[in-house]
Amino acid sequence: MTTPTPTRPRILTGDRPTGRLHLGHLAGSLQGRVALQDTHDLFVLVADVQALTDHFDRPHTVHDHVPEVMLDYLAAGLDPAKVTFVLQSAVPQLAELTLYLLNLVTVSKLRQNPTVKTEIVQKGYGEAVPAGFFIYPAAQVADIVAFGAQVVPVGEDQQPMLELAREVVRRFNSLYGPTLTEPQAHLSAVSRLPGLDGGAKMGKSLGNAIYLSDTPEEVQRKVMGMYTDPGHLRASDPGRVEGNPVFTFLDAFDPDPARVAALKAHYRAGGLGDVTLKRHLIEVLEPLLAPMRARRATFAADPSAVMRLLQQGTARGRAEAACTLKRVRSALRLHEC
Amino acid sequence: MTTPTPTRPRILTGDRPTGRLHLGHLAGSLQGRVALQDTHDLFVLVADVQALTDHFDRPHTVHDHVPEVMLDYLAAGLDPAKVTFVLQSAVPQLAELTLYLLNLVTVSKLRQNPTVKTEIVQKGYGEAVPAGFFIYPAAQVADIVAFGAQVVPVGEDQQPMLELAREVVRRFNSLYGPTLTEPQAHLSAVSRLPGLDGGAKMGKSLGNAIYLSDTPEEVQRKVMGMYTDPGHLRASDPGRVEGNPVFTFLDAFDPDPARVAALKAHYRAGGLGDVTLKRHLIEVLEPLLAPMRARRATFAADPSAVMRLLQQGTARGRAEAACTLKRVRSALRLHEC
Repeated sequence: MTTPTPTRPRILTGDRPTGRLHLGHLAGSLQGRVALQDTHDLFVLVADVQALTDHFDRPHTVHDHVPEVMLDYLAAGLDPAKVTFVLQSAVPQLAELTLYLLNLVTVSKLRQNPTVKTEIVQKGYGEAVPAGFFIYPAAQVADIVAFGAQVVPVGEDQQPMLELAREVVRRFNSLYGPTLTEPQAHLSAVSRLPGLDGGAKMGKSLGNAIYLSDTPEEVQRKVMGMYTDPGHLRASDPGRVEGNPVFTFLDAFDPDPARVAALKAHYRAGGLGDVTLKRHLIEVLEPLLAPMRARRATFAADPSAVMRLLQQGTARGRAEAACTLKRVRSALRLHEC
Repeated sequence: MTTPTPTRPRILTGDRPTGRLHLGHLAGSLQGRVALQDTHDLFVLVADVQALTDHFDRPHTVHDHVPEVMLDYLAAGLDPAKVTFVLQSAVPQLAELTLYLLNLVTVSKLRQNPTVKTEIVQKGYGEAVPAGFFIYPAAQVADIVAFGAQVVPVGEDQQPMLELAREVVRRFNSLYGPTLTEPQAHLSAVSRLPGLDGGAKMGKSLGNAIYLSDTPEEVQRKVMGMYTDPGHLRASDPGRVEGNPVFTFLDAFDPDPARVAALKAHYRAGGLGDVTLKRHLIEVLEPLLAPMRARRATFAADPSAVMRLLQQGTARGRAEAACTLKRVRSALRLHEC
């Protein structure tokens, strides 16, 4: 790993290793990260501790997806010479920092977090929310400040999380003196990719995803089975473009917007069949996925080398977090013992 | 420090370093600990991280009371050759363990904790409960299991805390296989000492305490100013023993129960003046406090030696906690990285 140029702004992003990454991740974050790795000091966190907050009864799932997610990252084009991959559970400083930051966050603030609110409903927790899950936004703040991230890429729905981080940093610095870096949001332009079934979101656990690791046959089968416009029965019928996930996928991945605009006009007017349209989507996806499969195969041939990349990045992450924690402990007037 | 006999049951207890220890601590826990140090492998935790959960805006208070509380312990007769003193903030494994255990505790369970409920009202937090304070019962569970405590001395009001620890241990072991030791309660016989003002509790922050470090003059002044029976105006009047803190103090500290019974009868019948009674209490307290002052003076003459005792104990505590955490991380299938 080369030493990143210190003038590059530090950026933190990551994923919970609970499933393979898919086209939704590619459009929503991975493509953006691949672009950022050339201009930023990019830290990518494999958030296994956070994954356990709602997978505590499935620790094997989390364990097994740590190398899988690493392969997905490398397949997607994240360059280990540029990116610092960090395994969350191997940076114990994050846990200690989380406890200190929890003193500066109220229970009602956590309760009001819109993302957590939505997830509590989705997961059907009711009153039985695991406390570890409930406090995870504070743990995310610890991740951000521990690595000294100046920039955090966020989607629209993650803005409250970043706002919490900024509030906590300001409160910490005002109570104890300037210690932590206040992060800035890097709003990602791409919106959320729908599921193959037309569902609002492509999800690891929803069975409506095309994975970066899918074979050409799987991609073909999944695209051919995609939801389109249910009123578009014959090719000659006019079809709806809005809410048609095939077009949303083309908007996200077709490098030729003029071609997509022409296809939309043709589909609306009638005369463009779903099978033809889907064949085009496959032709768009394959040049994207084929080099990822090739990179994945290369890295997958040497699993211990992949884990070594994670170890090297984690060592750097641990050093950064230790440095932050040292300042935090001094600010909190804790004894060295 | 001698190596404790491994057959002695491990016991964990401790205090938050937020003020000097007083007679309430002596009656409620310190005397019991001095007795237990000969029969148990006694770990005493100086809980500075927990202290910060409601003193996060006064870190200097916590910092300054770490050596003070150590002096109180040594003054009270805890023997550094028998006791393992541990500084909580210097055992980072506790924080990591806390996060993992938080996944096994629900928010509603924490909300129902009677001790936390009462404290939230007392501290006037309302909805603005700091999350760190809210989750501290789970952090206490981490303390107990990290050091493998088999026994935890608890007062009546701390039983829900120990019950939580037992529940979490059973849940952990049932989810991940036998990993943690389920602690047993050691119910302390002595009840809570009232304040000098007759208030329900002698408290560090209530201004109604006799400190172990008070001078003979301070003790005399405080005892002479104690609340008694407000209806007992002349020595010849009959007086009330119930709710009279002077008698509660005698019950707690006079080594001669027959003498206390006789004094009670005399007071009830009339003819025993408050001044005479209070002089007797001073005569009971002084032989208790004088050797403590002497021990305190000896240890206070070498502050760095006191901190070294804490360092030595903390090193042993850290090794125990690291051992527990290793088993926990393996149970959770976390990667070594």
